[in-house]
Amino acid sequence: MIKNINKTRIVLVGTTHPGNIGAAARAMKTMSQDKLYLVTPKTFPSAEATARATGADDILADAKVFPSLKEAISDCDLVIGTSARTRSIPWPMVSPRECAKTISEDQYSSVAIVFGRENSGLSNEEMELCNLVLQIPTNDKYSSLNLAAAVQIICYEIYLLTGNDSEKGPVESTAALVKQDKMEMFYQHLEKCLIDIEFHDADNPRLLMHRMRRLFNRTQLEENECNILRGILSKVQEKIK
Amino acid sequence: MIKNINKTRIVLVGTTHPGNIGAAARAMKTMSQDKLYLVTPKTFPSAEATARATGADDILADAKVFPSLKEAISDCDLVIGTSARTRSIPWPMVSPRECAKTISEDQYSSVAIVFGRENSGLSNEEMELCNLVLQIPTNDKYSSLNLAAAVQIICYEIYLLTGNDSEKGPVESTAALVKQDKMEMFYQHLEKCLIDIEFHDADNPRLLMHRMRRLFNRTQLEENECNILRGILSKVQEKIK
Repeated sequence: MIKNINKTRIVLVGTTHPGNIGAAARAMKTMSQDKLYLVTPKTFPSAEATARATGADDILADAKVFPSLKEAISDCDLVIGTSARTRSIPWPMVSPRECAKTISEDQYSSVAIVFGRENSGLSNEEMELCNLVLQIPTNDKYSSLNLAAAVQIICYEIYLLTGNDSEKGPVESTAALVKQDKMEMFYQHLEKCLIDIEFHDADNPRLLMHRMRRLFNRTQLEENECNILRGILSKVQEKIK
Repeated sequence: MIKNINKTRIVLVGTTHPGNIGAAARAMKTMSQDKLYLVTPKTFPSAEATARATGADDILADAKVFPSLKEAISDCDLVIGTSARTRSIPWPMVSPRECAKTISEDQYSSVAIVFGRENSGLSNEEMELCNLVLQIPTNDKYSSLNLAAAVQIICYEIYLLTGNDSEKGPVESTAALVKQDKMEMFYQHLEKCLIDIEFHDADNPRLLMHRMRRLFNRTQLEENECNILRGILSKVQEKIK
């Protein structure tokens, strides 16, 4: 897997609301994308874009503005258009996940993901500059994704595949788990305590200890949790003596 | 795979900007989520929320408002908190994709996904009401996801797994899990018992009850397990009298 997030640019075509440009920049930056290309934005730069970017204003400052989509993508070897609707002339359609996978392939050195106007999307002429069409799965009855939300989802999928170079996935708990031999000592201590308080009758055990084992095995106790529980058991035993 | 998207609610805690509530509603609706729960929103309802919802105002109209997180999730059998940062006491962490997979399991009948305040997230007390913590992978250097963007990503992952089939109602779980209000009674009983045996000093509590909550929330007690544990606590209390 090639980890080169930097070969991708996000191209926004004819964006009407400057706030959406700022929000898209923020969405990009959270997912380590930094190349923003704007084709004939209605208003740019603007204070509203900067406000909505909230700390991603470096992306806005570096944004490039072009008079046409063709010029914004001239040096790309893969151009992916986004579409909210199924077009009458069928294009090869990919999902965000498939798109991320395609982008991560070695074969491409410069990729554009193109987002159309808020109300009307990309024109047919613009769509014809694309190699693939990406569609985000949505509610059949309400597919009105906000522009920045669409950017967010696609950049998220790309980030999952190409972006985690800093070895961070979801964080696992690093606390040491109790090993089996120590768990066995815990169960013996628990059983003894339950007998001492006359909750448990060793001669007529029913399912009690099975249930306790199932519960605590499922939990995977950490060392200090096991120590606390054994401390409680010892205290109970001391108190009833 | 059971397709029952309707068992999930999105809970926004202490949202400051009404625009974010509207944008979250829109994000939810594009992914077929319709249950919005608001805990102490700063301003709601508001014209700004409605404007940003852009056609998802039905979600806002049906939104329920609560004075505390506890009340918003009392009937849930799985509560998933979202966090932007790694906490000092490690919680079991899941990714959005793992979260979606967990939610799609039959075992849960009512699931809450909880989003904290724009600036400060969830408090530790709120986090302790959660069974799992969800973290969206982001750029190490800029993890400032917009609230609605976080809602969008998570609802997108759920939508991919549980999809369109919004006709299906909640599914009964095989072994009934203890719901939040009953877990709260368990923790109160446990704390009382630990005080009675003088293991726990309520005036100098250290982290004991926090650790106990973390342990048993992670475990997700079944009804009969909870009954057994409470039976043990009662027996201890009776014996030391």
